[in-house]
Amino acid sequence: MSISYNPIGLIYSPFKSKEGVPIQPKGAKNIKGKIVLKEEFTAGLDDLQGFSHIILIYHFHKSSGYELKTTPFLDDKKHGVFATRAPKRPNAIGLSVVRINSIEKNIIYIENVDIINETPLLDIKPYIPDFDVHITDKNGWVANKIDNLKNTKSDNRFD
Amino acid sequence: MSISYNPIGLIYSPFKSKEGVPIQPKGAKNIKGKIVLKEEFTAGLDDLQGFSHIILIYHFHKSSGYELKTTPFLDDKKHGVFATRAPKRPNAIGLSVVRINSIEKNIIYIENVDIINETPLLDIKPYIPDFDVHITDKNGWVANKIDNLKNTKSDNRFD
Repeated sequence: MSISYNPIGLIYSPFKSKEGVPIQPKGAKNIKGKIVLKEEFTAGLDDLQGFSHIILIYHFHKSSGYELKTTPFLDDKKHGVFATRAPKRPNAIGLSVVRINSIEKNIIYIENVDIINETPLLDIKPYIPDFDVHITDKNGWVANKIDNLKNTKSDNRFD
Repeated sequence: MSISYNPIGLIYSPFKSKEGVPIQPKGAKNIKGKIVLKEEFTAGLDDLQGFSHIILIYHFHKSSGYELKTTPFLDDKKHGVFATRAPKRPNAIGLSVVRINSIEKNIIYIENVDIINETPLLDIKPYIPDFDVHITDKNGWVANKIDNLKNTKSDNRFD
């Protein structure tokens, strides 16, 4: 069974290639970008300006193939791909939470963008702390690597 | 341009139909389910047991079609579909964060499941508070509806 989606628009950012992209929105403070939604979907943005943050679900269009054991940007050891946020995955789906600066018709101006230019966007959802903030008691291999987050940028290891 | 994904497995839960499903994991405390990953992907789960929570990205297989203005379960007013978490969306992609109880080979036993039985799973990512917790300053139309969350269940409005 195969599931097909049509992008609802494109994400634009200053990052023209895979090198040097912040690896998460929290490493991308103040990086600005925009979403250009296909005009036919503009009415779907009504009331979105009431939220400060949105969840973007998108296709890692520069990734192809995957390995089940992979070395993520934050570590030098291999982990199961589903225990990482690496872009090369069986289904190359990316997830980022960004801040909305403004919305004009079908264009959303965003901030904290850790996404490559011209990435196909699949869905937008409002980020709602009551839904989306969870208290964890185990943070796996990431727990003692997180201090590297702000200074770690992507490289070509997933080429 | 169309993007195709093959499910990596199925999500099993006590919810056999769309009626009565909790509308978010936070309304689904203690509801147990399991993920049966396709065996070929089992090695991708290595080290996932170190995390207490995972993000599931899945296909709303019981949804078809969409309206750009929709009335979500938590409200009686219409909002742009991208300002809601409604299942009927241009791309019917769902997102839930669930708790891991245990992992045995290709099976992940999970808790806080707000997902219909036999939902096709597209991706698993570790939930990492340093990546995934964001401080919002605006929570849109949801802000004064959130008290309804624990008691609101889905109904057939998206049929």
